[in-house]
Amino acid sequence: MRTTVGIIGAGPAGLLLARLLHRAGVDCVVLEARDRAYVERRQRAGILEQGSVDVLRACGAGDRLDREGLTHRGFELRFEGEAHRVDLPSRTGGRTVTIYPQTEVVKDLIALQLAGGPPLLFDTRVVAIEKADGEQPLVRFVRGGHEGRGGQEGTLECEFVAGCDGSYGASRRALPAGAVRMHARTYPYSWLGILADVPPSSDELLLAGHERGFALHSMRSPAVSRLYLQVPNGTDPRAWPDDRIWDELDVRLAAGDWRLRRGPVLAKSVNGLRSQVIEPMRYGRLLLAGDAAHIVPPSAAKGLNLAFGDVVTMARAFTHWHRTGSAALLDRYSDNCLRRVWQAQFFSHELTTMLHAAPGADAYDRAMQLTWLRRVTGPTAAAAELAENYAGAPLV
Amino acid sequence: MRTTVGIIGAGPAGLLLARLLHRAGVDCVVLEARDRAYVERRQRAGILEQGSVDVLRACGAGDRLDREGLTHRGFELRFEGEAHRVDLPSRTGGRTVTIYPQTEVVKDLIALQLAGGPPLLFDTRVVAIEKADGEQPLVRFVRGGHEGRGGQEGTLECEFVAGCDGSYGASRRALPAGAVRMHARTYPYSWLGILADVPPSSDELLLAGHERGFALHSMRSPAVSRLYLQVPNGTDPRAWPDDRIWDELDVRLAAGDWRLRRGPVLAKSVNGLRSQVIEPMRYGRLLLAGDAAHIVPPSAAKGLNLAFGDVVTMARAFTHWHRTGSAALLDRYSDNCLRRVWQAQFFSHELTTMLHAAPGADAYDRAMQLTWLRRVTGPTAAAAELAENYAGAPLV
Repeated sequence: MRTTVGIIGAGPAGLLLARLLHRAGVDCVVLEARDRAYVERRQRAGILEQGSVDVLRACGAGDRLDREGLTHRGFELRFEGEAHRVDLPSRTGGRTVTIYPQTEVVKDLIALQLAGGPPLLFDTRVVAIEKADGEQPLVRFVRGGHEGRGGQEGTLECEFVAGCDGSYGASRRALPAGAVRMHARTYPYSWLGILADVPPSSDELLLAGHERGFALHSMRSPAVSRLYLQVPNGTDPRAWPDDRIWDELDVRLAAGDWRLRRGPVLAKSVNGLRSQVIEPMRYGRLLLAGDAAHIVPPSAAKGLNLAFGDVVTMARAFTHWHRTGSAALLDRYSDNCLRRVWQAQFFSHELTTMLHAAPGADAYDRAMQLTWLRRVTGPTAAAAELAENYAGAPLV
Repeated sequence: MRTTVGIIGAGPAGLLLARLLHRAGVDCVVLEARDRAYVERRQRAGILEQGSVDVLRACGAGDRLDREGLTHRGFELRFEGEAHRVDLPSRTGGRTVTIYPQTEVVKDLIALQLAGGPPLLFDTRVVAIEKADGEQPLVRFVRGGHEGRGGQEGTLECEFVAGCDGSYGASRRALPAGAVRMHARTYPYSWLGILADVPPSSDELLLAGHERGFALHSMRSPAVSRLYLQVPNGTDPRAWPDDRIWDELDVRLAAGDWRLRRGPVLAKSVNGLRSQVIEPMRYGRLLLAGDAAHIVPPSAAKGLNLAFGDVVTMARAFTHWHRTGSAALLDRYSDNCLRRVWQAQFFSHELTTMLHAAPGADAYDRAMQLTWLRRVTGPTAAAAELAENYAGAPLV
């Protein structure tokens, strides 16, 4: 097989990139290791910035999003039993965010792709990306097989490879030692997350910075709640029976006479919080996007939006190169993305630090944290800054 | 002796408090351990927020300040060889800061006090503050003597005691164990400061966040420069001959073709950076103000301005009590001050962290620090927030 841009990974980044390239007349092929059912079930983020919504609409993937997405005009910060609403449109020139699960974005983009987009091959594991430092990279893959064994070998010759296959994918493995620098941090706490079959207890997200730790009330849909608790690293979810989770959520999210609705817990898991940045986001003709290039802690819900930012920038660079032969935008791809990536990394770190109880924190740390929370919920520019960063900038 | 408010310490806090109380018709006496010459020579801060200038003017201590003070409408943040100016008036509704050394403020206030203000006793060491938890505190002191020995004992009976005698003074020693909570932090670096007999190399302050560490270009007057370098804790100033200091300042402050003027070094010293907050700022009828209650790292020049904020709040509370018999404002004194104190503590911590090279910091830390610096020097609300905090709020 041959194509112009070989896209590794049919997550939201790879699928949106394929969509953007297809509309710009640039050939591409998407290779995805898993089957369609698996990809469409993969639970991830659920908050789209205005800029992400705009780009999905612009490329024809906005119909169901517009029907089913929940527009949020703000969220609440809770601490010391107080609820402080952060209004987004009034602070950001009218910007909002939209609750629409990543898994639904993926379904919409797959449907569009299969209905007439460029080739999308499921069950196709990339085993090597060769000659990324030359003019004609070669992607070796295996189609079919079972649990990583068997299947049929094949190759994809391309002019560029877009690595959109996450932080454990073939793209990262294809980077020679020393070719890029990897920045990494692990946070000293994790999130215990549950999906609950109960309508959300609030129309908006509630982020709590309780003395006992962070808690988050979010939602997947008008019928399903998504809730999180800060827990120590290494926590076994079995140590948290449902009642214990609800009781702790009650304590941490408490404000006035607000009450949390309880319901059957559909899923429960513990995940660590980490930061990663690969610099540059390119090795020769292999360009990285999304989780393949960077990981942010989930507190500010920037991961998916950053991935969209990357592929919008990448699609523009490929389109420019395709039309003019100039590699100028490709050469600036990494720098252009990294500015946004580091800003999101910084904001995610701030929102995380502001709301989590760090192990070993003392009364001074807590006083400083409350001072910070009062500042961003007060009348000064700090509140505008929080809203600006949360709502995100246009994806340009 | 008897008075209404016994003020311990003739630094800027105690002197301004005496001035404000005198104008409001509240009796007071100021006791200062050192002699006048010592107090008038004590080198400290030099940046007055707009609010501090306003209160000095309002109480008749603004004449020389208006003639000799240098109004600054901004400052520069320097990093990566770039200079970014932070404009204050455009971001803060017209607020500025004024360079006027604390030692000059003290001289002006002493002159006013001696020309017709309430009693100001130099060479008067407070040895005990008794019955602060009762209705009638008693201050025991010794006048005269030599190096803490000899002299004449005396007492001051008062209705309230204002502790304005710094972090090593009698007021702090008078606090019984467990009566207040002391929050404290020591930063993992110090400042090597020099006073140089050379005109400043820039009209405005230059704060550098170099990879090798913080540097600050400031001034005492149009003829005298004040410069600082971040150095490791425990640094011996003798390890820094003048040439080494100037060379390092050249490296850290560098931007474009700007050049640092060198001149004779008049003084050289190393000081640690620390944060302290005493909570509450009151024990019975002993109210603390300024350094007696809190210490901030010097980066944001908040120490003197916070002290003024405290005594403005305290003077209003005493005046209200004196006129109406109501202790309502006195009872809110600590809470009212602490909100401002923690905000200043937080901002000082931010500005310090943003610009200093922490021991053990790696490439990730540096990237985050540069991201932060780019954010506060960019077009967003972060820049407004920095200017707001630096210029300070009115002292109400």
